[in-house]
Amino acid sequence: MIYADNAATTKLDKDAFVAMIPWLQDEFGNASQPYSFARKPKKAIAEARALIASCIGAEPGEIFFTSGGTESDNWAIMGSALGNLEKKTTVTSMIEHHAVLRTCEAIERLGYPVAYLDVTQDGIVTAEALESIITNRTRLVSVMYANNEIGSIQPIKKLAEIAHVHGAIFHTDAVQAIGHVPIDVKELGIDMLSASAHKFNGPKGIGFLYIRKGTCISPYANGGAQESGLRAGTENVAGIVGMATALKKNCDEMSDIADRLRKIEDHFLEILDQAHITYIRNGADNRIPGNVSVSIKDVSGEMLLHRLDLKGIAISTGSACDSVDTQISHVIQAIRVPAEYAEGTIRVSFGRENTETDADTIAKALVQILTK
Amino acid sequence: MIYADNAATTKLDKDAFVAMIPWLQDEFGNASQPYSFARKPKKAIAEARALIASCIGAEPGEIFFTSGGTESDNWAIMGSALGNLEKKTTVTSMIEHHAVLRTCEAIERLGYPVAYLDVTQDGIVTAEALESIITNRTRLVSVMYANNEIGSIQPIKKLAEIAHVHGAIFHTDAVQAIGHVPIDVKELGIDMLSASAHKFNGPKGIGFLYIRKGTCISPYANGGAQESGLRAGTENVAGIVGMATALKKNCDEMSDIADRLRKIEDHFLEILDQAHITYIRNGADNRIPGNVSVSIKDVSGEMLLHRLDLKGIAISTGSACDSVDTQISHVIQAIRVPAEYAEGTIRVSFGRENTETDADTIAKALVQILTK
Repeated sequence: MIYADNAATTKLDKDAFVAMIPWLQDEFGNASQPYSFARKPKKAIAEARALIASCIGAEPGEIFFTSGGTESDNWAIMGSALGNLEKKTTVTSMIEHHAVLRTCEAIERLGYPVAYLDVTQDGIVTAEALESIITNRTRLVSVMYANNEIGSIQPIKKLAEIAHVHGAIFHTDAVQAIGHVPIDVKELGIDMLSASAHKFNGPKGIGFLYIRKGTCISPYANGGAQESGLRAGTENVAGIVGMATALKKNCDEMSDIADRLRKIEDHFLEILDQAHITYIRNGADNRIPGNVSVSIKDVSGEMLLHRLDLKGIAISTGSACDSVDTQISHVIQAIRVPAEYAEGTIRVSFGRENTETDADTIAKALVQILTK
Repeated sequence: MIYADNAATTKLDKDAFVAMIPWLQDEFGNASQPYSFARKPKKAIAEARALIASCIGAEPGEIFFTSGGTESDNWAIMGSALGNLEKKTTVTSMIEHHAVLRTCEAIERLGYPVAYLDVTQDGIVTAEALESIITNRTRLVSVMYANNEIGSIQPIKKLAEIAHVHGAIFHTDAVQAIGHVPIDVKELGIDMLSASAHKFNGPKGIGFLYIRKGTCISPYANGGAQESGLRAGTENVAGIVGMATALKKNCDEMSDIADRLRKIEDHFLEILDQAHITYIRNGADNRIPGNVSVSIKDVSGEMLLHRLDLKGIAISTGSACDSVDTQISHVIQAIRVPAEYAEGTIRVSFGRENTETDADTIAKALVQILTK
């Protein structure tokens, strides 16, 4: 099997797996308890928090563990809106993940207004777009760091600056970016950042929300005093330790992996070019390493996915959460891919386990399906 | 080390651990994707859902995976209140876990009224108490199955009946009960039930909410289509499989474990009695197996915890979430333990790993501290 759907999930890193084991065996103590047997898990959590903070230029106390990217996004948006008597506006983009978009719809139903930013054909939210929509009645601007379907990286620093000029908080869903491109929250001016471990070779069921000190947000889960009283629930020690180990490793090897992935991408596209396949490559030049979203003319992406699957190749047609229906994804619609190409959109997302041989095999299999 | 704080967390079952491994290694596929590599995790999740449902008399489609008991409680209460224009009342008890109580406070701040039920000195919510407070403007009655501090099991069937007569939904936080006492949601008339895996020898970071078919509830996490669109987020396959394995095993061995725990409890108390320790045993006769909450006269529970800790014994003074401060817990206050006993409350919670020798060692250590 060749797995090239790393934007959907990644293989758990071996060191992360090993690091998790003690917390799934003898060191099972509840980290919130006051006795000696809680000391090791408590220490492990503190170390994981500090390690994660160091990977993104944050303070340890600004990292809040959650069950994953979806929870982090829900918290950032709900937590900024709810509980405020003054129903200020949330501004987000048309190409956000559903974890953001559907949460925005949820707060709209509760009477909190939301404004949606259009994107360029490269899938970029421009400073001009944000300037034209933001007002002094905007509470939150939420724009993803990198798009999950087409990989485009947003001008985060500029967007955060604009948000701050208008007194708004800036949140970014960095689920696709963290562990893949360098991110320094302080340097970029990010107030909140969502992350999911299983997108950077960590375990499933764990993630975090970075919340800059002083940011006004409601607690997400009410209950115990965990996570400074903002996110209650017995700590998932194994998940937290696995996440920190994976993130640190990915960050340490980031530049080497990125270089290798760029070559793999190029090789993949070369084979399509040599076979004279008519396609559009989606996304901006500044994109997540390994992301290859191509819209191929007059073909069904779904058919391609299934034919590749029969050959033992796992890729995607759109975002993971859309895969149950065959509609053209909201992202592909938002970047205005022409109708004769849109349905033929596939996303190949290479990860650090992939080789040039994988790219070769997938591209040749694709060419074979398309030309026979 | 002798661990006797099983109400705080339990050791992960060995079979559950083994069952989790493949999903943390090679079978890392995203269960929501449409290709072959997602088939095994998808099947594993479906089987886990069916297994869990069979343990509590539910249908598989009524089991919704969450990140744990706190999330399940937050969802049940927030999800019943929010989104309803008509702000009907939520009724709960004074002795609920903070995951319920603080969520009730959160909805109160959003303008949804909450009424609180008093309990008997045994820690029981009586039918009369509920009858006296419930009205036809009650939307939800939330009463825990068994209390986490004193173990008292509530008359759930009767309380659910009363709720239904008044057109209200009945939720129970069964975090302490599931896997320890037999529960049949249909026979008891439960509409929603919260569970946390790590309380029944499953992993941390995973739980579920049972939602009876037809129950009106808002989604908790917005995003992808997972969990029938009600709780978005990439599935924590390892956690789900581990939870199902642990629950099934605990349910299969429930009656044997309970018998053994009763003997261990009796042995523990006999030693206190023989040493003429003056104490009150808290809770009702119908309690969770293994729970021994005793309030000892004229002593500090916190001191006892620390002295026992020095002897390598882990017990608790109150609920896990209260352990950071030394105030008398809301449960001990609610059951009106006399002042000279209240501060000397400790909770020893034996689990299936404990032996009579453990009880012997702990009780004798306690007597030694108290009498020297």
